[in-house]
Amino acid sequence: MATGRKVVIGVDLGGTNMLAAAVDDRKGKVLGESKRRTNPELGAVGVSERIVASVNAAIKEAGLKRKDIAGVGIGVPGPVDPERGIVVRCPNLGPSWDSFPLRETLGGSLDLPATIDNDVRVGAVGEHTFGAGRGAGDMLAIFVGTGIGGGLILGGKLHSGCRSSSGEVGHMVLLADGPLCGCGERGHAEALASRTAIDRSIRAALDAGRPSSVPQLLVQSGHTLISAGIIGDAYDAGDQVVIEAVQRAQYYLGLLVSACVNLLDPEVVVIGGGVLERMGDSYLGPVRQVAEQHYINKTSMEGKCARVVRAALGDYSGAMGAAVLARQRLA
Amino acid sequence: MATGRKVVIGVDLGGTNMLAAAVDDRKGKVLGESKRRTNPELGAVGVSERIVASVNAAIKEAGLKRKDIAGVGIGVPGPVDPERGIVVRCPNLGPSWDSFPLRETLGGSLDLPATIDNDVRVGAVGEHTFGAGRGAGDMLAIFVGTGIGGGLILGGKLHSGCRSSSGEVGHMVLLADGPLCGCGERGHAEALASRTAIDRSIRAALDAGRPSSVPQLLVQSGHTLISAGIIGDAYDAGDQVVIEAVQRAQYYLGLLVSACVNLLDPEVVVIGGGVLERMGDSYLGPVRQVAEQHYINKTSMEGKCARVVRAALGDYSGAMGAAVLARQRLA
Repeated sequence: MATGRKVVIGVDLGGTNMLAAAVDDRKGKVLGESKRRTNPELGAVGVSERIVASVNAAIKEAGLKRKDIAGVGIGVPGPVDPERGIVVRCPNLGPSWDSFPLRETLGGSLDLPATIDNDVRVGAVGEHTFGAGRGAGDMLAIFVGTGIGGGLILGGKLHSGCRSSSGEVGHMVLLADGPLCGCGERGHAEALASRTAIDRSIRAALDAGRPSSVPQLLVQSGHTLISAGIIGDAYDAGDQVVIEAVQRAQYYLGLLVSACVNLLDPEVVVIGGGVLERMGDSYLGPVRQVAEQHYINKTSMEGKCARVVRAALGDYSGAMGAAVLARQRLA
Repeated sequence: MATGRKVVIGVDLGGTNMLAAAVDDRKGKVLGESKRRTNPELGAVGVSERIVASVNAAIKEAGLKRKDIAGVGIGVPGPVDPERGIVVRCPNLGPSWDSFPLRETLGGSLDLPATIDNDVRVGAVGEHTFGAGRGAGDMLAIFVGTGIGGGLILGGKLHSGCRSSSGEVGHMVLLADGPLCGCGERGHAEALASRTAIDRSIRAALDAGRPSSVPQLLVQSGHTLISAGIIGDAYDAGDQVVIEAVQRAQYYLGLLVSACVNLLDPEVVVIGGGVLERMGDSYLGPVRQVAEQHYINKTSMEGKCARVVRAALGDYSGAMGAAVLARQRLA
């Protein structure tokens, strides 16, 4: 801390894992971090305790003290009211999060100022500030994990929307009356292209008696969840059930990209999240192909417009973006 | 012309009709107008001649001379390059419009400066400046006619996008692998909720032998096209085939609104175009109901957010918006 500038903490709260990072937001550098399972079955209060522990662990890991920290930003997987510090709803975490006063709950335990926003919106801020969207005027980020979320940067700034709920790309209908989404409605992108959707496709094929390496991989992993890791391993090994499930998700992700591009015509669409992290750049080829087929304007202005690229910050986009927002709002 | 301020001409070029209006853009008042069929079978050059005739007729109708006119704005039904004055593509007008230099073609014949933009984007500007979206920061306009188009106002200004092709809501996928769209792809909103889609649903029912008043109404009209007028008359008379076709279009329009609201979270969605003009406010009830069901954030912030309202300028939103853009760009 030669400059005397305090560090900001960013927390990315996902449906499966949470990551807290102590961030030097001038250099875009993580000084210390702590990752753990979200364990949503603990409910909003229990998960909040895990967030506090995670923040404290990241501060310790960075070799810092509480007085070195300017504030904490938390990205939450659902719509939030950033001004009041309240979570509106978290479809993937459960009903105890409805109208949950997260900022107040954390504030007391942390003894640090806190700000909250949607997890994927903070991820978009991270990718725009330090990652694949650097320098773009208009950028859309789409994160594919347990659910699908997005964040919009317009004119270089985070677009919050009238109710602070812009960027909910996971709940755009792509297949009317299609499979049930976590939100209770049908045919949304999240129900077709998320890791959960891939999981569901694989289980349907297994139920139909098709051969696959997934049951064995599940036993080896010791979990019941078909993780991005298992999907990637089975895909790489040529498991036909998994390949088809992945291709289906890629197809719908391409349709989602095309819908957003036809509406917004941004410079760049950044795609990230656990599935992309595991599957790598090659995941984007079929996504781009489907998207471009549905673009009403097929020119790319020499590659300057409607680029579809992979997120550059990996698992850190959310935590880093949350730290950037903490600096902006709490400085 | 007591003030000496010159008048601007706005032209709304639709797939079926064109409207030219001489506009006092301070008062939002139409001083004179001329409406005629587009006759797309004449091709881009032939339709351009009709535009020139229409502009001249509107000037004459307003009791003005050429020297009273500051310039002409034209809204075109497809993606355009406003800077170069070139039409990129008009799916509903035919291939002769691909890369057509409309501004240059009109400039020579009109002897007036001209500017072009997408027809529904200029409609959005019209509704935002003088109509149902007045005062909104973020507004989306959706126009339902032969096709479906949209225009985005963000932060009070027309959002053009990277390739000047934002707002193409008609080509957002709502039913993957669904009916064929005018653009050549499947399942787009335009193929499900436009007048053309209603027309197609009605004809499918007629082909299946269902009784309907439409064949007789078509004979009476002297046209082969199932117009918004015929749809409205048959709907009002309780024609079950037409009621079902309209309900289907309303359902998909509701899904489209929800997709856009979940992505953008705007203050207001303005819906206009020929079908809405004929069917009236009651058309929006079922559209709102479907849309709200799919909103991930169901609060409306005391009616301040995500309002779904009918366009207020009727057939004039496009021509008035084109006139506003002509003033901004040619003044």
